[in-house]
Amino acid sequence: MYLVNDTTTQACPTLAAPAVRVRRLGIDTHQEPIIYMRRDCPVCRSEGFEAQSRINITVGERTIIATLNVVEPALFPDELLSLDEAGLSEAAWKLLEPREGAHAELSHPRPLESLSHIRAKIYGKTLSAEQMHAIMRDMVHGRFADVHLAGFLAACAGDRMTNGEIVALTQSMVDVGEQLSWNADVVVDKHCVGGLPGNRTTPLVVSIVAAYGLTIPKTSSRAITSPAGTADAMATLTDVDLDIADIRRVVQREGGCIAWGGAMRLSPVDDILIRVERALDIDSEGQLVASVLSKKIAAGSTHVIIDMPVGPTAKVRSPIAAQKLARMFEAVAEPMGLNLKVVTTDGSQPIGHGIGPALEARDVLAVLQGQPDAPADLHGRAVKLAAEIFELSGKVAEGQGAELARQILDDGRAWAKFQAICEAQGGLHEPPVAAHQHDVVAERAGTVVAVDNRRLARAAKLAGAPEDPAAGLEFHARLGTRVAKGEPLFTLHAESPGELDYALAYVAEHDGIITLE
Amino acid sequence: MYLVNDTTTQACPTLAAPAVRVRRLGIDTHQEPIIYMRRDCPVCRSEGFEAQSRINITVGERTIIATLNVVEPALFPDELLSLDEAGLSEAAWKLLEPREGAHAELSHPRPLESLSHIRAKIYGKTLSAEQMHAIMRDMVHGRFADVHLAGFLAACAGDRMTNGEIVALTQSMVDVGEQLSWNADVVVDKHCVGGLPGNRTTPLVVSIVAAYGLTIPKTSSRAITSPAGTADAMATLTDVDLDIADIRRVVQREGGCIAWGGAMRLSPVDDILIRVERALDIDSEGQLVASVLSKKIAAGSTHVIIDMPVGPTAKVRSPIAAQKLARMFEAVAEPMGLNLKVVTTDGSQPIGHGIGPALEARDVLAVLQGQPDAPADLHGRAVKLAAEIFELSGKVAEGQGAELARQILDDGRAWAKFQAICEAQGGLHEPPVAAHQHDVVAERAGTVVAVDNRRLARAAKLAGAPEDPAAGLEFHARLGTRVAKGEPLFTLHAESPGELDYALAYVAEHDGIITLE
Repeated sequence: MYLVNDTTTQACPTLAAPAVRVRRLGIDTHQEPIIYMRRDCPVCRSEGFEAQSRINITVGERTIIATLNVVEPALFPDELLSLDEAGLSEAAWKLLEPREGAHAELSHPRPLESLSHIRAKIYGKTLSAEQMHAIMRDMVHGRFADVHLAGFLAACAGDRMTNGEIVALTQSMVDVGEQLSWNADVVVDKHCVGGLPGNRTTPLVVSIVAAYGLTIPKTSSRAITSPAGTADAMATLTDVDLDIADIRRVVQREGGCIAWGGAMRLSPVDDILIRVERALDIDSEGQLVASVLSKKIAAGSTHVIIDMPVGPTAKVRSPIAAQKLARMFEAVAEPMGLNLKVVTTDGSQPIGHGIGPALEARDVLAVLQGQPDAPADLHGRAVKLAAEIFELSGKVAEGQGAELARQILDDGRAWAKFQAICEAQGGLHEPPVAAHQHDVVAERAGTVVAVDNRRLARAAKLAGAPEDPAAGLEFHARLGTRVAKGEPLFTLHAESPGELDYALAYVAEHDGIITLE
Repeated sequence: MYLVNDTTTQACPTLAAPAVRVRRLGIDTHQEPIIYMRRDCPVCRSEGFEAQSRINITVGERTIIATLNVVEPALFPDELLSLDEAGLSEAAWKLLEPREGAHAELSHPRPLESLSHIRAKIYGKTLSAEQMHAIMRDMVHGRFADVHLAGFLAACAGDRMTNGEIVALTQSMVDVGEQLSWNADVVVDKHCVGGLPGNRTTPLVVSIVAAYGLTIPKTSSRAITSPAGTADAMATLTDVDLDIADIRRVVQREGGCIAWGGAMRLSPVDDILIRVERALDIDSEGQLVASVLSKKIAAGSTHVIIDMPVGPTAKVRSPIAAQKLARMFEAVAEPMGLNLKVVTTDGSQPIGHGIGPALEARDVLAVLQGQPDAPADLHGRAVKLAAEIFELSGKVAEGQGAELARQILDDGRAWAKFQAICEAQGGLHEPPVAAHQHDVVAERAGTVVAVDNRRLARAAKLAGAPEDPAAGLEFHARLGTRVAKGEPLFTLHAESPGELDYALAYVAEHDGIITLE
């Protein structure tokens, strides 16, 4: 539509993107790509880049968008960053994988069309499948800054996504990642919506189900707001950072695996979002459903059981809330062709003894090995969920799943299968033990009448879980237990005195973590 | 409620906060405080700090929370950051104002109670005045990371704040900053809700009103999503970074000032939020009302005119939307004891010739000096708004404001007052001129029938405004203008070829910036 006249006296120079040499600065900014350039460098000046500018960086075939941090030349020595160099944070370095000193072209990124979709969502609009897909595509290519991800998550939290949007989000999350397929008509899976500390049934369920001969390529996430996810607990026992080739090999050999989903790029945006959800400490329902189902679909699952613990301090607090979330799961699974059943379970107190990656791993081993002090509740929960999978799969008649699951767990077949899976994943290790352990004891005698899962989980997190695998707590005060004065209610485990101190301060300040009567 | 037993074999060391020496690393991360520590430093290891940990830093009387970036010792030389040092970003350095090498105590921050309020808002809850106040208090102390700010903004965008919440937000924004008071029964002010490029009436209105003898301590913000705010334009003419003492002196001497609000800590959280609003490119209504009114109240204003341009591509698009926003302004102003009138104005095309800080400043000078090519629309708009202020103040009879304002502007009193104000603020300078100027011309002859303010603003921003004060565009194609083929519609101004290139690419791709018939 328009012609362009050059009326400037100064000739317009060629507009080729300016080049710099890249340098690994070794600054770990977590996942956010940062580029560091000197305030006096010619590229910053010619391009008008300044602190917090978003910059396109191209090295060879790869292009990323990074945020600029401007370095004051007087304070940062020339040896570390010269005028024709751009420093890269670890995240930027890993995305670009350049040679040291490689040439990079820098340019202004085009305005992201999908950012206007995020804005529309923030303002309360409903997004189309195409718009959701565009957001996910840019997200997986690392084109958003953390503030954009936070805005998107906040805009989608609560009741703010329609079922249609959640379907679109789920499908887009699948589409932008890798997908697995299996030579099996039935591929089963299970997922717990969480909120119940210590509910580490997955390693048990996978072992039981795979021992029976079903295919269960289980991928788990790390903790979002809890003291441990299955991937965190399993990482204390074996290698969970499997890639697609690994998972194919393990599942073809053993029928099942227990892997961290993030390393495999099945629904890779999920891990990008989880990092920001953690920082905001939110974990919203629509996002939860999309996160769970996208991983299941990408992993090739056909039949999925959702374990939904319900209790006043669990993630799902009431039967009404459970029903609402269950309907959301079903409404999204159905159009995607997934057979799904939601199983509500008791969420009034933690499962097992341990809360925290290594401590929960120890409970899993105790149940598999049939140790006398193995937690009975964890055993029972695993049998129940395996039974539901057996019956949903159509391979076991209704009413016969529980007995079958119990036999496989109790006669050592599940333990043998678990060891075989761990061997295939890289070997079975002993979980670590924390350097500092403190008992929190009852001030008076009484009977345990209530347990606050959230505060217990908070105490375990303050003690260092899940970042420190050995950190967390051991829980001794199940509902109905009679405790004497001075008897331990729970034992905090921490790797550093600072974290232990902090967990203790929290415990001292908060009544009602465990209520005695 | 609980006692604590130490059952560890390792004695628990004293839990005093570990100390490091601080070092200014000269890394400009914009406003986000970052602390840099080596991965192998004893404090990181003993405290369990890792990349993206939030860390309390205390130096002397001051404490801030910063985000940790972990530095790989192999890549970062010891001379730059030794094992007992913590590097600080420019933002962290400015908040703490330490001596180089000063001792800092590091600790885990307590969980912010107010973060749970932000979460509640994200989940759709209505916040109490106390909760809003707690959020603002932590925000002004720099205790949130950018993702928290983004979550808060997204949760409050659209229609998601009640009027009660906006009142609480406004009052809290006032309370956590400085406040001015004046020896005058009437203190007037004006604000334009924006969205209309080039609408730079403030310097004119302040000059007219102050020349008449009213008190008008005008504070303006920088651009949020537009190519220029009043503070950006005025910064090309004089010093706008006034502190509280400066503004008192200038207003006591001249009756008015034209200052940047951010330098004064009147409603300081506003500038914190605006930075993230810019990154998200959102500017929501509740936030807008709280932002505007908190600055007015903090500046001691009693009578305020809101200029609300309405047009299909202005910020406010329809009379209905204008009425809704006007009601929100009135509903918040009333309980806060502010006399406020909303004046809707024509928003169908830019005002004046220039779009961008320096180009708009030139228009202001032309009107004040009565130059023959001065934009008549800017002149008329300034007279209208000054008249509304005169009449709202009660100092001028109804119906007589316009004639009075016109006389003061046309007889040179306003120009004299503007020069006196600029002198008091630090001297009047010549605005800069951009190095690159390109005409965008009509491909065919026709009459201008529509102008897209948003796309014109976008082109001016891509050319470098407001970061480059001289950048932006000159607009030649007012509605109804008859243009010949090849005649310029607008002229882009840019400081760098990269930015000019980018603005030109945008113009070439987008039809309908200016529609000819």
